[in-house]
Amino acid sequence: MLSVRRGLKAVEFYQAAFGAEVIFRMDSPEGRVVARLSANGAEFWVSDESPEHKNFSPETLGGATTRMLLISDDPDAAFDRAVKAGAAVVVPMGDMYGWRLGRVVDPFGHHWEIGKLLGES
Amino acid sequence: MLSVRRGLKAVEFYQAAFGAEVIFRMDSPEGRVVARLSANGAEFWVSDESPEHKNFSPETLGGATTRMLLISDDPDAAFDRAVKAGAAVVVPMGDMYGWRLGRVVDPFGHHWEIGKLLGES
Repeated sequence: MLSVRRGLKAVEFYQAAFGAEVIFRMDSPEGRVVARLSANGAEFWVSDESPEHKNFSPETLGGATTRMLLISDDPDAAFDRAVKAGAAVVVPMGDMYGWRLGRVVDPFGHHWEIGKLLGES
Repeated sequence: MLSVRRGLKAVEFYQAAFGAEVIFRMDSPEGRVVARLSANGAEFWVSDESPEHKNFSPETLGGATTRMLLISDDPDAAFDRAVKAGAAVVVPMGDMYGWRLGRVVDPFGHHWEIGKLLGES
């Protein structure tokens, strides 16, 4: 469950960047959202932060305490798509640790490693 | 990928609290660890923080920017096990939003919701 500011924009971004589908969403009258997304079978949730419940966005804390690892059959294409949608490159796509791997940060401050294990077809 | 301080202790904790199995681990000579864990099929990674690479622990930032949702057939037992291993209760186990759900924070500052969707066998 990723805490963000501007949850509605975040849901749109994850749809564009990762081709994520919305499989559940709940919108509040105040414009806040809780959404369950699936990026090619990898499920995650997104919701507006609520610091009063200890749910902090990376913008509020000045960094992120986890990063997501998004496995893709074609990580180069997935990486390019995310960057085109507005993610910023943190580590360019390359071969490392036996993985084809790159890292981006999204406009909401969450970090994503996009890759695949090399040697697997 | 959860960033933590005291990675070695964190791996031990997740084994005790969630019955996680270590399916890969890499220890550095300096006592740092990167580990891939599986808690009843739910995979996650744990590593020592490296703020110079923008990997921050909750202890460093004073909060967490994501929370994990751990699905269990018997969430009450899973919750009790986590608390017994040293997690602190944030929201006691109860029925909410159509889920049987509770929330804990682990000794490293990461938050876990433990539950199952009600109405599913």
